[in-house]
Amino acid sequence: MRHEFSRNCIPTMALSKNRIKYIHSLELKKYRKAEGLFLAEGPKLVGDLLGHFPCRLLVATASWLEGEHGHLPADEVVEVTDEELCKASLLKAPQQVLALFEMPADEAAPLIPAHALCLALDGVQDPGNLGTILRVADWFGIEHLFCSPDTVDVYNPKCVQATMGALARVRVCYTSLPDLIRRHPSLPVYGTLLDGDNLYHQSITPHGLIVMGNEGNGLSAEVRSLVNRKLYIPNYPAGRDTSESLNVAIATAIVCAEFRRQCVGS
Amino acid sequence: MRHEFSRNCIPTMALSKNRIKYIHSLELKKYRKAEGLFLAEGPKLVGDLLGHFPCRLLVATASWLEGEHGHLPADEVVEVTDEELCKASLLKAPQQVLALFEMPADEAAPLIPAHALCLALDGVQDPGNLGTILRVADWFGIEHLFCSPDTVDVYNPKCVQATMGALARVRVCYTSLPDLIRRHPSLPVYGTLLDGDNLYHQSITPHGLIVMGNEGNGLSAEVRSLVNRKLYIPNYPAGRDTSESLNVAIATAIVCAEFRRQCVGS
Repeated sequence: MRHEFSRNCIPTMALSKNRIKYIHSLELKKYRKAEGLFLAEGPKLVGDLLGHFPCRLLVATASWLEGEHGHLPADEVVEVTDEELCKASLLKAPQQVLALFEMPADEAAPLIPAHALCLALDGVQDPGNLGTILRVADWFGIEHLFCSPDTVDVYNPKCVQATMGALARVRVCYTSLPDLIRRHPSLPVYGTLLDGDNLYHQSITPHGLIVMGNEGNGLSAEVRSLVNRKLYIPNYPAGRDTSESLNVAIATAIVCAEFRRQCVGS
Repeated sequence: MRHEFSRNCIPTMALSKNRIKYIHSLELKKYRKAEGLFLAEGPKLVGDLLGHFPCRLLVATASWLEGEHGHLPADEVVEVTDEELCKASLLKAPQQVLALFEMPADEAAPLIPAHALCLALDGVQDPGNLGTILRVADWFGIEHLFCSPDTVDVYNPKCVQATMGALARVRVCYTSLPDLIRRHPSLPVYGTLLDGDNLYHQSITPHGLIVMGNEGNGLSAEVRSLVNRKLYIPNYPAGRDTSESLNVAIATAIVCAEFRRQCVGS
């Protein structure tokens, strides 16, 4: 049963070895799935997520707890010493507080909200890239991120940390992208492809779906076939024949920035 | 003495333990500085760097060497088994070839080429960010990257790998940024600052210096005072009060993309 935690009832007992083991087990996807929980660390990140996701356990030092004046919406709060926090933390430099949150369930057949600009990732593998893309989505007011089932787990602790709190503001849903796209027959589906048209010469709709592909292989063949507006980010000088490429988070940011620039009409 | 290596004289001796230790020592900046060497791994990266930097030692499997038909511009080539390569490599998944290259010396008082758009980094700390920024510079045809002395070392193996070969095409120079800027009194110096003006409402010069700051703290006070064109990347919806921020490599990419977009006049 969840309750509002009040400063008067801090359980001060230390973390048992078993609990530390339990926290560490959430580094692996199979345990996260089994428990329905994920780990977040640090005052900024935990602060952003508290209230957005149900918090089952909050582990913090006295100095952090002192700074929290209101009620903490957590099922359980454990006060620890810096040394104990070090043992529980997965970070090289633990930061005062860590917490276990419930992950939301994926919708079975999610829909893309009308008039919204949404983002989809097709097989992105690096947790740092996924976290950075969530920050980009957050910055540009994109509220829905759809991920193919083979995209890295957003609740991977490395990814959670890399989101810097954007996870609280961008809804992430794992689902089949071809099925998602086919549920919306007239949806503009944008993808960056080598044979695409110059991003800056396109008339862009303020809504639709932008799909971005895997770091090495780009979009899967099936998703590629469903893209109906192919884009290309021009390099400079134009048409230069080099072996360079752009990181997927970078490409996502440049495309999203251009959509929002055209949208505002500047 | 360097020589063109020919396929007929592959030394097939294995790597001694001491040589493996020597290769691994280059993970640390002090040994890289002392030896003037850096390590790069993988066919794409080593292929891009060969010919751009003098190669002192190339360690490769027979399968990689078989694919190389011309002369290899390396002082010494050692053929190894996959097992030996694993021992020498710093990667989790070694990729056929690694090489030690000479790092170029920094110029004492570098100059910014006239009519060029250049980039400067003020205290960027993450090797992945620096590597990604090099790829961005490469994509947008920015040939000079100036780094403050407290910016992470570009020859850090993690950074070298993250450049994906851009290190061969973008010149990197460590130097005092305030001194660099003061040597060019009429230079447009662009920086992204919270009190900057909307990037898309600026008339941007096709040349000048773009300075980007540290991940946590942004630009140092001294460099900030030398910025004469303050920019701001607008979020969406505009003026939304959120706690989000953009990663430094992402911000660099959005700014560089806009400079090149305006430059081409699209």
